[in-house]
Amino acid sequence: MSVAKGNCLIAQSGGPTAVINASVAGAAEEAMKHSEISGVYAALNGIRGVLLEELFDLGKEPSKHIRGLHCTPSAALGSCRYKLKELQSSQADYERILEVFKAHNIHYFFYAGGNDSMDTADKTAKLAAETGYELVAVGIPKTIDNDLAYTDHCPGYGSVAKYVATVAMEAGRDTEALYTTDTCTVLEVMGRNTGWIAAATGLARRCDEDAPHLIYLPEAAFSLEQFVADVKSVQSKLGRAFIIVGEGLKDKNGNYVTTQTGDFAKDSFGHIQLGGVAEMLKNVVEQEAGFKCRYIKLGTAQRNAMHFASATDAEEAAMCGRAAVQAAMSGVWCKMITLVRKENGDGYECTTGLADLSAVANGEKKVPAEFINQEGNFITEAFRQYAGPLIRGQVDVEVGEDGLPVYVRLEKHMLDKKTAAYALE
Amino acid sequence: MSVAKGNCLIAQSGGPTAVINASVAGAAEEAMKHSEISGVYAALNGIRGVLLEELFDLGKEPSKHIRGLHCTPSAALGSCRYKLKELQSSQADYERILEVFKAHNIHYFFYAGGNDSMDTADKTAKLAAETGYELVAVGIPKTIDNDLAYTDHCPGYGSVAKYVATVAMEAGRDTEALYTTDTCTVLEVMGRNTGWIAAATGLARRCDEDAPHLIYLPEAAFSLEQFVADVKSVQSKLGRAFIIVGEGLKDKNGNYVTTQTGDFAKDSFGHIQLGGVAEMLKNVVEQEAGFKCRYIKLGTAQRNAMHFASATDAEEAAMCGRAAVQAAMSGVWCKMITLVRKENGDGYECTTGLADLSAVANGEKKVPAEFINQEGNFITEAFRQYAGPLIRGQVDVEVGEDGLPVYVRLEKHMLDKKTAAYALE
Repeated sequence: MSVAKGNCLIAQSGGPTAVINASVAGAAEEAMKHSEISGVYAALNGIRGVLLEELFDLGKEPSKHIRGLHCTPSAALGSCRYKLKELQSSQADYERILEVFKAHNIHYFFYAGGNDSMDTADKTAKLAAETGYELVAVGIPKTIDNDLAYTDHCPGYGSVAKYVATVAMEAGRDTEALYTTDTCTVLEVMGRNTGWIAAATGLARRCDEDAPHLIYLPEAAFSLEQFVADVKSVQSKLGRAFIIVGEGLKDKNGNYVTTQTGDFAKDSFGHIQLGGVAEMLKNVVEQEAGFKCRYIKLGTAQRNAMHFASATDAEEAAMCGRAAVQAAMSGVWCKMITLVRKENGDGYECTTGLADLSAVANGEKKVPAEFINQEGNFITEAFRQYAGPLIRGQVDVEVGEDGLPVYVRLEKHMLDKKTAAYALE
Repeated sequence: MSVAKGNCLIAQSGGPTAVINASVAGAAEEAMKHSEISGVYAALNGIRGVLLEELFDLGKEPSKHIRGLHCTPSAALGSCRYKLKELQSSQADYERILEVFKAHNIHYFFYAGGNDSMDTADKTAKLAAETGYELVAVGIPKTIDNDLAYTDHCPGYGSVAKYVATVAMEAGRDTEALYTTDTCTVLEVMGRNTGWIAAATGLARRCDEDAPHLIYLPEAAFSLEQFVADVKSVQSKLGRAFIIVGEGLKDKNGNYVTTQTGDFAKDSFGHIQLGGVAEMLKNVVEQEAGFKCRYIKLGTAQRNAMHFASATDAEEAAMCGRAAVQAAMSGVWCKMITLVRKENGDGYECTTGLADLSAVANGEKKVPAEFINQEGNFITEAFRQYAGPLIRGQVDVEVGEDGLPVYVRLEKHMLDKKTAAYALE
């Protein structure tokens, strides 16, 4: 598809990660190299900022700010959870997006996010084509949950994996030292309906003594009775148990195990906000197994832990950003960049590929059975082979004289508004 | 006091820290230099291991293990929460300790711990003196809570301070990116009845935009009404609020604010185990202020975060270990090593001093009023001056090819038992 010269827009959506800013940096740096692209713009808070015409000029940022994004966690452009629905039911929103794009001569749209963001980018580009407006939309994969289809893994996953494994290792040593009183610890990690993050903690276990000893993933039906038996069994062998639970554990009927506590709320995407599994299971351990139990809930700390992020992850995130711009320049349309693992049997290598935005939008990649042991309470060697390379290397974060990381905050030189105000639904 | 040549015993007690093993390394390395000390022994799980005659020989550890303790979190000797009471009511225990010490010719006792451990060391040494057995007990300060009296600060505090400040900075960026939906976050930190750890998160705030925006310490009487007003006020200015709460918040009558939830249990020292403040206040924010709120409970992860520990703290912890042995060699008796800040007006310097074990055992150092702002919801510049130097520098942790930290686990060459079995109370 040939495309007129014009401006590009970069935006971020959904839950932040340690490296989604690295993707923005990669895309912005690459975009600034291409003469087909005039202005390199960003939307404040994802598609929400497009609808409100809250755009700013990345070209006016000091270059050290763009460089600093490679090592700055969270979403420096701002993120959102604004969900567009089908073209017909959200027609006004889609038309508004095109109105803003046209007003600012935006012909390239690079959207870093998960399934919902890929869906938004896809529908926007297709509506543009119908109306004769040339718009290239390329998605940049982003999710700590690692549940996007068609990509070997997702930028953001390697860093959360490295951090939760490190926390399991360190807090596991606490349980080991104090087992005579504080016998068990439950560590709850994110991941929604998939157990990729929970599984990653298993990388910390280099020998039987090491934590974690039990890992429960949403992909394996959870039984309270089996859980209590597992904890007692580990305690009888090691004198302690360090236990990982994914936030979205479900029983054999597919019901969340926390349903009974009513600890539920929905976010504005209609996704159920999960929580409270660790606290619930702490009480189960104390009451049913009879051991004192502590719990840890890392919450959003886990997805922003740039201070010990994976260099492999950060580099791949930037690579995806660059690849998105390169793909747009080469004429692709409605694609998401994927990560492709080279199977050369001689160490880990990773390149990029392409998948249809529409296909990614509707997929969800669960942890496959071969990565979970027979008992449904730990990972397999096959998972180690898969995830091990993704957590290698440390990002070289700048640390200030005060002993704390130095992260970038963008100046955000806002573009003048050219359209009438628009009210969000 | 002159002391016969003999063996020394090093032990750890109470909640682990990132650097209590550095104190053990410092003491062991120093002890091995002195001809007055023959064997350098350790007790498994603190005083509990002495009572059970579970001792091992640090001299038989590979020297790389002792070196590795400088960068290994938690308590590598094992810890305990076994509390000895007054001499009269726990007389059997104290006599048993002396029996084990005599059986293994132990004349030097180096105990790293908090108030309770100092009390145990003090009473043991005084009973020994009464019975004519030469025993030098020197305490090594240890607590993340930073609440020991007579010392400027405590080894362990600088590292937890650095880590919770970093988490506040990073998770604060998450709230900043997603403020349009996830407007507030409550981060709960440890510290029992003192707010030293909560206060440390304030070091992350370099400008008004930065998290945290509100810090609540147990030293300032907590009012739910004022809390809700504070959150609304910050949200109206910044569009979001990142809030720190100490686990031991109390109302103006001195009652824990979580009492109503019944989320209480006592540990085996009779200390109340605090928890659930963050979850409770998350609900208050959502119901009373009307903003969606997340919460984070770092639990034991915060006190073992060697992967981003303070080099200043680790070096001072080792210095305290060395100083304990040097003090014993110079003839002191029933003292704890203290950290003394040199007031030279020209940068931070720290040396060691001595305090009576009995005095430390009964003290508790609260965060003074000058470190808390008038509103009782943030720190002052005076606190920054105090705590800032303690978090400087990063420990150079070994990271394996697998991308995760490499921590030492001791071989623990157990000593043959020489006494009859003893039953714990």
